[in-house]
Amino acid sequence: MVMGREELGQRSETVRRANLSAIVRELHLHGPLSRSELVARTGLTRSAIRALIGELVTGELVVEEPALRLGTPGRPSPLVRLATESTVVLALEISIDSLAVAILGAGGVVLEHRRVDRPRGHSTLEEIAADLVDLARAARARRPLGETPIGVGVAVAGIVNRSDGLVSFAPNLGWVDVPLGATLTAGLALPVPVGVANESDLGALAELRRGAARGADDVLYVHGEVGVGGGIIVDGRPLSGIAGYGGEIGHMPINPQGRPCRCGSTGCWETEVGERALLARAGYPLDGGRAAVDAVLADAAAGVPEALAALQSVGRWLGLGLAGLVNILNPRRVILGGLLSRIHPFVADLVEASLDRHALAAPRRLVSVVPSTLGVDAPLLGAAEMAFEPLLADPAAWLGTRGALVQLESA
Amino acid sequence: MVMGREELGQRSETVRRANLSAIVRELHLHGPLSRSELVARTGLTRSAIRALIGELVTGELVVEEPALRLGTPGRPSPLVRLATESTVVLALEISIDSLAVAILGAGGVVLEHRRVDRPRGHSTLEEIAADLVDLARAARARRPLGETPIGVGVAVAGIVNRSDGLVSFAPNLGWVDVPLGATLTAGLALPVPVGVANESDLGALAELRRGAARGADDVLYVHGEVGVGGGIIVDGRPLSGIAGYGGEIGHMPINPQGRPCRCGSTGCWETEVGERALLARAGYPLDGGRAAVDAVLADAAAGVPEALAALQSVGRWLGLGLAGLVNILNPRRVILGGLLSRIHPFVADLVEASLDRHALAAPRRLVSVVPSTLGVDAPLLGAAEMAFEPLLADPAAWLGTRGALVQLESA
Repeated sequence: MVMGREELGQRSETVRRANLSAIVRELHLHGPLSRSELVARTGLTRSAIRALIGELVTGELVVEEPALRLGTPGRPSPLVRLATESTVVLALEISIDSLAVAILGAGGVVLEHRRVDRPRGHSTLEEIAADLVDLARAARARRPLGETPIGVGVAVAGIVNRSDGLVSFAPNLGWVDVPLGATLTAGLALPVPVGVANESDLGALAELRRGAARGADDVLYVHGEVGVGGGIIVDGRPLSGIAGYGGEIGHMPINPQGRPCRCGSTGCWETEVGERALLARAGYPLDGGRAAVDAVLADAAAGVPEALAALQSVGRWLGLGLAGLVNILNPRRVILGGLLSRIHPFVADLVEASLDRHALAAPRRLVSVVPSTLGVDAPLLGAAEMAFEPLLADPAAWLGTRGALVQLESA
Repeated sequence: MVMGREELGQRSETVRRANLSAIVRELHLHGPLSRSELVARTGLTRSAIRALIGELVTGELVVEEPALRLGTPGRPSPLVRLATESTVVLALEISIDSLAVAILGAGGVVLEHRRVDRPRGHSTLEEIAADLVDLARAARARRPLGETPIGVGVAVAGIVNRSDGLVSFAPNLGWVDVPLGATLTAGLALPVPVGVANESDLGALAELRRGAARGADDVLYVHGEVGVGGGIIVDGRPLSGIAGYGGEIGHMPINPQGRPCRCGSTGCWETEVGERALLARAGYPLDGGRAAVDAVLADAAAGVPEALAALQSVGRWLGLGLAGLVNILNPRRVILGGLLSRIHPFVADLVEASLDRHALAAPRRLVSVVPSTLGVDAPLLGAAEMAFEPLLADPAAWLGTRGALVQLESA
């Protein structure tokens, strides 16, 4: 922050907005807190907290309510919480097997949630966008009349330019350079921005804020289905690269003698640890999808040798690739999501052994590998977090805007 | 920044320090500037700049001098510049073939520089530390009496824990868990901190500030000699991981059918693109060192088939590994340093073709691969930049401290 000494008024306004942001962020991430807890967490004085909470209450972003303290003597401190029901975002997801919609209230409370199967294979932008718009409409119809989201987040199984929501490459959908952001903005016809990002990047964000990566600043989230993508958190911030394409760890070359990859290269990591590699090795049809994966896992649990061998192969390649990424990123935690979280119980020991053998001792000692705790919904929840971000960064801009948004939408 | 409304005094002090930092950083990175240029670059008002420059002049960090404007009418604006000669850092480097020392003045001006060959092979911590202390003493003896550096930076070809300067692993030196930082702190006996970091991380920092990466926020610097290391810049900030071990791209597994690596794994990238891979393929002894590399390059220039084939092999593996890193990091620029900058002219086309074939189209379109412009000294210059960092971050802490440092050292 660089400011002249004369700009006291402007500076004071900047500080006020930063303080409002700190309070709203704490309430969003940690849930209802007493004023004393807010003092402790933000480092603000008690009187500053009082004034700022007052502003947030007047602006309808926050409510204060009496706390219930059973059996504790003395007057209980009132709890401050975000106005969950009146400050909501819309989250959408396009994954390989399903489309999903959710409406979340401030604080990350899921108010509406629906996931519908979609047949695998290529779909046009128009088909997908129409289905998502229908899902969104149906979800909003189940909510109170007049509720308008403050933002929309979309997770997609593809490589996305974050600045314009253009999907550069989504092999599962058969998309190359498809304007998803613009199309959904038109289709949803909401007076708020529509952000689009890669499912793994958003899965990482969700796990960081609400899942297995909480409390870690350097995180690698690995999302595996047919394709394998990564979400990388460096020092608490997402590594997105210059256009949001970063994190495509599934296309790290790992086996030059291996199979052709859908991306045009050969021997990418996803050709060894993705769903097709598992099914091929277990003797199931490559396009068997989720049902075939379930069958492999059931076989393995029953001790069928082909299934166990297939999982072992995936586990070894998984560990080898993770070793490389641990060497490159020196992360605190690796989170396995999607298919990889389902196979984790079968391959955990192999992955650990592979890290011992292939990663450098120093970063290896510091990392732990754990399955996702948010499961299949991690990308969808991350899309919601992305949509909340402008509110968290500058809540002052949203004070008392609810009526205005409703008017804009009905105009 | 989170502050209460009451803490106006403290806030104003924070702003003053941030503004001093902005000015000193501009002067350090861009050289002497007029007050008008500082106004434009920092966004501060003219009167704020005047007051802050006054403080910096009084504190002996900055001097103002008349500008020479030949043939331009009107009174020339005085130039503000850092007091290069009185604010210096000591930089040291341990690389595979040499030890180096430099003394740099604020603004990155090299005042002293010496590089001496060291025989390859293992050395004890005590030997290396004694040699570096001797080099530092000799360099300081050539400088004015009473000059005390404000910081010391050390670049080392190894994996370093930045918090304590412990070298976790340095195969060129035969080091495992060696307390380089503590030993140099004792040996140099200077009243200032000694920072230790990996040579590639520091090479990246130097190229970012003063070399081929200037103006790019997302950068991959690849430093290759016998070992291959990386320095990764994400959104303008170094990716160091949780303990500073990040960037070990030389130990990305790329060829499971390949050679054993010094790290204990097999088929790491450095086994295909490091010096030994080049020499082995060209038919030279593996331990031929720099002289053998020179011979291979001379052979190649003369059209000797074995040398050309060896370079082609290295070029193809280089491109394949870079493709994976481009997919993971989505960088603006890749800088090749050390051996890799020397072979770049021979392999540039192959590397580009390999990126076309193996990297995803979207990030590939946005990246360019260029040789280092700082050459062999990049890590040494980066060590100096690391040592300047506390001054750049908070120059207020250094105002008028020169006398105190001299007193501390002679005490």
